[in-house]
Amino acid sequence: MTTSLHDLETPALVLDTDRMDANIARMQDKMRGLDVALRPHVKTCKSRDVALRLSGGGQGPITVSTLKEAEQFFAAGYKDILYAVGITPNKLDHVVRLRREGCELSIILDNAEAARAVAEKSTESREAVPVLIEIDCDGHRSGVKPGDPLLLEIAKTLEKGGAVLGGVMTHAGESYNCRSVEAIAAMAEVERKAVVDSADVLAGAGYDCTTVSVGSTPTATYARDLAGVTEVRAGVFVFFDLVMAGIAVCSIDDIALSVLVSVLGHQPDRGWIITDGGWMALSRDRGTAKQKVDQGYGLACDVEGRPIADLIVSDANQEHGILSFRNGGHDVMREFPVGKLLRILPNHACATAAQHDRYRLVRRGSTTIEGEWPRFSGW
Amino acid sequence: MTTSLHDLETPALVLDTDRMDANIARMQDKMRGLDVALRPHVKTCKSRDVALRLSGGGQGPITVSTLKEAEQFFAAGYKDILYAVGITPNKLDHVVRLRREGCELSIILDNAEAARAVAEKSTESREAVPVLIEIDCDGHRSGVKPGDPLLLEIAKTLEKGGAVLGGVMTHAGESYNCRSVEAIAAMAEVERKAVVDSADVLAGAGYDCTTVSVGSTPTATYARDLAGVTEVRAGVFVFFDLVMAGIAVCSIDDIALSVLVSVLGHQPDRGWIITDGGWMALSRDRGTAKQKVDQGYGLACDVEGRPIADLIVSDANQEHGILSFRNGGHDVMREFPVGKLLRILPNHACATAAQHDRYRLVRRGSTTIEGEWPRFSGW
Repeated sequence: MTTSLHDLETPALVLDTDRMDANIARMQDKMRGLDVALRPHVKTCKSRDVALRLSGGGQGPITVSTLKEAEQFFAAGYKDILYAVGITPNKLDHVVRLRREGCELSIILDNAEAARAVAEKSTESREAVPVLIEIDCDGHRSGVKPGDPLLLEIAKTLEKGGAVLGGVMTHAGESYNCRSVEAIAAMAEVERKAVVDSADVLAGAGYDCTTVSVGSTPTATYARDLAGVTEVRAGVFVFFDLVMAGIAVCSIDDIALSVLVSVLGHQPDRGWIITDGGWMALSRDRGTAKQKVDQGYGLACDVEGRPIADLIVSDANQEHGILSFRNGGHDVMREFPVGKLLRILPNHACATAAQHDRYRLVRRGSTTIEGEWPRFSGW
Repeated sequence: MTTSLHDLETPALVLDTDRMDANIARMQDKMRGLDVALRPHVKTCKSRDVALRLSGGGQGPITVSTLKEAEQFFAAGYKDILYAVGITPNKLDHVVRLRREGCELSIILDNAEAARAVAEKSTESREAVPVLIEIDCDGHRSGVKPGDPLLLEIAKTLEKGGAVLGGVMTHAGESYNCRSVEAIAAMAEVERKAVVDSADVLAGAGYDCTTVSVGSTPTATYARDLAGVTEVRAGVFVFFDLVMAGIAVCSIDDIALSVLVSVLGHQPDRGWIITDGGWMALSRDRGTAKQKVDQGYGLACDVEGRPIADLIVSDANQEHGILSFRNGGHDVMREFPVGKLLRILPNHACATAAQHDRYRLVRRGSTTIEGEWPRFSGW
């Protein structure tokens, strides 16, 4: 049986459970301090084992990004599940099926056409589907703009048609582009205000608005007050990544996820170390490209997880990573011989984890494999 | 049973088998014309069913990019398999295991350290592992430079240690960056000459050099003469993609792969159509970003597969695609209502297919699902 990273075939996904547990504890403390529920987004981990840690061993409320996640986590005992991507009509039969099996699945939407489709399906199936109306707090992507009369039109369509208006939700996707802690804290307040104001509009018109939901890892980390908010959704904090470190939402030392790779050759005249961790293993995500520090396709650490200053994956092919020092000046063949193991910290944990089917578990600073957790993918 | 794209949940990967079959036939004709064997690279498809079409129903020679592919295709009856990523020592036990099971697996390397490791393993295991020496024809990534005395050093190390020198191989990765057919044809000649010259050096020193292998879809498509070459490896031609269309290696009409998505909302003031096909379904590949025509995260087609002029996935989040017309000017809410299906042509077929676990098969211009083929991923 494999017991050490040194015995693995590469590339392989490595999860430092000490770092993960610290990340989870920090976010849970933060939510307790703000007196708001955490509804972790399990799209990052897609793993029952990680989710168990996220909900402290129980099966609390979770957020999912696909109905496959809803299926998988429902099968693992989770019931209170929010599918937080705007619903399309071709998924409604699946939603109804899950609800009939006992899953307390709720969905989101931001337009009258989808509201009509959900209302019709609720009537036709006699399964009243609970809906949160998505609010656009930052012009990032989706949602009803605060103050838009569409909000009440959707509420009316839903309730008239036999669906259930559960409340409102928003996602401050633009927080990923903030350049300071102050800007993120300000964005958290914008996010809070957008949903709380919308909930007030709905309540003023006589609608129940039980759930007032916000969420993004940056705003959750730096929110100062969440008055009126009932729950926070966040996902990437469980592992963290270089994009989050690049906007000071975590430190590089908090990153729990890495990809184990082996050196397979060099181009010494160019200072290149070639590894077997290409973009298939790291993902094509270049999320740090527009940040102050561009980390290429990832930052290299030694096999124990200690970052190697300025050694990044400067380019990647399908199954090849090309590593180089930002400013050269190293005898790469001597320092990084063929077969040497490195661990690459990812730009974006969701994207990198998605390329793998399991986590190899290690403790901080160790190369001993403590176990293996499966993860799923797809739709 | 699902019989139409209109009955599917989205996102879903769609394969047009008419286009695929035409792509395969064209490449096979080209290879026959050049009197050289085709060793298709199955890293693109990772599917037994596609591979069967590639080898005309038999189980001919194939190229793989992972040992998992070697495992899977060996289990499906393929024996003559080249693992075309530079070997690392931690994979040698697996290589030996596969060979002992009857798989005629050969490997590649480009340095003396790896050659020593393979020689030692061959001696220790009494399993003589066949090796192709990788030649660097274009400074793209890996390989021994033509004329470098390292070539003979590696050959000597391998044979002295009990491994088998099978020949030489190269990959003109730089052909993806060529900007004209003329440049690609010239690159094909550079690629050919690099391996043929290296084979001559080895033969001159008394080494057998049975295999002289080149390969990339662009150079395979535009090579004019492959004298001295014994086989061509190419993979992406089976599906083609926007990157290949962008360098005139195929037309957009040849692209056999697409991702079926549904409209889930709009931002009408910005001309945005929001779909449920984000970068998780399309991949993060932005391979056309540096080409003459930047296709964003992909080019949109109607559900029958006809391109919609100038409608591209201009941005993508994890489970959301943001589509817009290059020059605006459309009533997107009216033309693309919620629930409407679109098919997105991928930048890079290998990257996009890797995000999915199966192909839904259609004929050209049809929405009828003719069948489903599984595909695998990972290492």
